[in-house]
Amino acid sequence: MEFSSKLLERAVNEMSQLPGIGKRTALRLVLHMLKQPKDQTLGLANALQNMRNDVKFCTSCHNISDVALCEICSNPNRLTDVICVVEDIRDVMAIENTSSFKGLYHVLGGKISPMDGVGPHDLNIESLVTKVAKGQVKELIFALSSTMEGDTTNFYIYKQIQQFNITTSTIARGISVGDELEYADEITLGRSIVNRIPFESSLKH
Amino acid sequence: MEFSSKLLERAVNEMSQLPGIGKRTALRLVLHMLKQPKDQTLGLANALQNMRNDVKFCTSCHNISDVALCEICSNPNRLTDVICVVEDIRDVMAIENTSSFKGLYHVLGGKISPMDGVGPHDLNIESLVTKVAKGQVKELIFALSSTMEGDTTNFYIYKQIQQFNITTSTIARGISVGDELEYADEITLGRSIVNRIPFESSLKH
Ligand SMILES: [Zn+2]
Ligand SMILES: [Zn+2]
Repeated sequence: MEFSSKLLERAVNEMSQLPGIGKRTALRLVLHMLKQPKDQTLGLANALQNMRNDVKFCTSCHNISDVALCEICSNPNRLTDVICVVEDIRDVMAIENTSSFKGLYHVLGGKISPMDGVGPHDLNIESLVTKVAKGQVKELIFALSSTMEGDTTNFYIYKQIQQFNITTSTIARGISVGDELEYADEITLGRSIVNRIPFESSLKH
Repeated sequence: MEFSSKLLERAVNEMSQLPGIGKRTALRLVLHMLKQPKDQTLGLANALQNMRNDVKFCTSCHNISDVALCEICSNPNRLTDVICVVEDIRDVMAIENTSSFKGLYHVLGGKISPMDGVGPHDLNIESLVTKVAKGQVKELIFALSSTMEGDTTNFYIYKQIQQFNITTSTIARGISVGDELEYADEITLGRSIVNRIPFESSLKH
């Protein structure tokens, strides 16, 4: 692609770094910006800068937050001894949307995936084990996608916390195997939380 | 969608203003940014700001340019009296890529489309007619997409410049009717420039 402007070329190149955005799509988006009022593009740029510079991760559950302790962790009406383990913050948003869960979350930040070079130490697992070891947790609910990586991650954590003799469960698999959690409909997802089963019995299948 | 961070929410909302980017895609893109090094997001934001603040449109052909007169218009090796009329800068890029055209361009900035509220005065038509009226043009090549809007636009311009008795042509329709110019393969597009036909004979079909 030959550009008549270095400014345009750089904007297209930067945009096309985003996943799923090729050069052609990036060019289309950037030319659209040039047709819109200037404030719109400057607003987008500013929002991205502010987010990247100032966003925090909750010191307790690793959810994205504007303050040190997120809204959920600091809500006195939540059950503090039931923790739902999820892959990323989209899963927190999806489960919160069902209003079926009143405990806290723990965001791992991914799944164990040797193929992608993601090991246990790249995830927020240690802080979860520490919570359990301190006796702060009565029940741990595994709510990872039921893929091989999800199962591996569940099992790795399970092995780490087995000695502490707490209840572990996985969300009921009303959700089809292999489906991403965030795309599940609210009712199915809500029901799968309510009907969660002990983690040990999920291993039998 | 319930967000745990206003900074995140604002970034997602701004991203989802872009055409074809829904809230879900915006969230996916923004969470991806949070996993990448900070410099990458700041680089993107900076590129968009610089582009939107500093990009210029060539004072002669309305192509995007970093200087007042674009590279093509200021190139002494180009034929200055053959002008190819295109809808937007993606078409300039597509035609330049074929290396089959040695004249100059005139970027209209769109097509006449009453349905979308785009009339002749929303496009760079007047400056084109002025060029022709000044006797600077020997041949005008219409290279708009062969859609109803493209044909209407061609015809509108043709009527404006008919009195000046210059050659007008349209690119040969090796390109299927209704196809967008920018998606045509190089060979077909290049050939359609070389085999252009007088505009009057294109009206007979
Ligand atoms: Zn939290
Ligand atoms: Zn120019």
